[in-house]
Amino acid sequence: MRITTVGLDADDTLWHNETIFRLTQERFFALLAQVADPPAVTARLAEVEGRNLRLYGYGVKGFILSMLETVMELTGGEPPGSMIREILAAGREMLAHPVETLPGVDEALAALSERYRLVLITKGDLLHQEQKLAASGLGDLFAAVEIVSEKDASTYARVFDRHGTGAARAAMCGNSLRSDILPALEAGAYAAHVPYPLLWAHEAADAPLGHPRFAELAAIADLPAWLDAIA
Amino acid sequence: MRITTVGLDADDTLWHNETIFRLTQERFFALLAQVADPPAVTARLAEVEGRNLRLYGYGVKGFILSMLETVMELTGGEPPGSMIREILAAGREMLAHPVETLPGVDEALAALSERYRLVLITKGDLLHQEQKLAASGLGDLFAAVEIVSEKDASTYARVFDRHGTGAARAAMCGNSLRSDILPALEAGAYAAHVPYPLLWAHEAADAPLGHPRFAELAAIADLPAWLDAIA
Repeated sequence: MRITTVGLDADDTLWHNETIFRLTQERFFALLAQVADPPAVTARLAEVEGRNLRLYGYGVKGFILSMLETVMELTGGEPPGSMIREILAAGREMLAHPVETLPGVDEALAALSERYRLVLITKGDLLHQEQKLAASGLGDLFAAVEIVSEKDASTYARVFDRHGTGAARAAMCGNSLRSDILPALEAGAYAAHVPYPLLWAHEAADAPLGHPRFAELAAIADLPAWLDAIA
Repeated sequence: MRITTVGLDADDTLWHNETIFRLTQERFFALLAQVADPPAVTARLAEVEGRNLRLYGYGVKGFILSMLETVMELTGGEPPGSMIREILAAGREMLAHPVETLPGVDEALAALSERYRLVLITKGDLLHQEQKLAASGLGDLFAAVEIVSEKDASTYARVFDRHGTGAARAAMCGNSLRSDILPALEAGAYAAHVPYPLLWAHEAADAPLGHPRFAELAAIADLPAWLDAIA
């Protein structure tokens, strides 16, 4: 068998995530409607998030802190208390939000787990990602779970060495070209992109069309057949 | 050799941490001096932190969010903007704070790493703990790093199985009886307690005096000799 190990991204690959961020952003726009219009809020929030990424990393807690900082900047440092309260509440709701797996995920993972070693590889807040995996009911299908602070080629090389038989005999599947696909290919693995309708601006990148180990799939349901064709 | 693997806690075992939290709390008391006295602020903050632990987990980002929530409660929901700004700034400073290793740590770890497989086992924010380890200059001495959301007996059993030869041939060293010592003993490992002058209230517990695999050490410098005596 050519492929022994399959890495899977979590947010927006196995379950909805960006949708929940966008709903919170909508609430944030409404909250700031008197102060700035949505494009201005979006631009400022993206700037604050970019500046804080090095300190806060990925995940909901850093997002809440960046929303609070954005509110401070857009209100001249004197936001009404209700804005702070609303943002803190929105953050707690995001963290407690039920996990909704994407269509076809349960069946695809059940089929894959019979033939390959499955490894969950995800960024975000450690505790929150563990809680989402537990809530998804998919935990038992994974041989290993790696919650990482950054997804670069060395991350994939390390994870596929530790939990499989190296990157050359592994495939990665995820919704982000920048985080899941390009660095996995660079590490020497196969990579299948399954787009999600929404993408965080930070994750945008061009598809490596024509790359011999790359595939663009319409849905995760197509993953088992693609892997079987390689093997 | 009886012991093959040594687990080490990070915060307040290898480097100062609670000191930095306490300094931030002092700033927090000063900020709220007009509203409540330090014991009342401490009690309220502890209550908010306890309530949020399930959602936020351990680490600086959750601490900042809990400080903000405490401010909201103690100011009737209308804090001056300066309080919010100060707390957000204090959080960023905590995350960017230089890492100061504790006395004797460098020498003890250098000695231990020649005879045992060293594994860092710590709670907290994933990215922040990785950054602190990098800044400490101790990273190369560790065979593995496990940043975990909870330290219970099953955590130690899993980590010592994965990175060593099981808990029965491992020893854990840390400053927290509750997180580092009691669950490691329960998992079947040896455990050495090296107290730090300050302890987060949440981590308090009684020492398992008389336990055959337990030792109370005055400093981490005593760890190599204790392990050699077992082996």
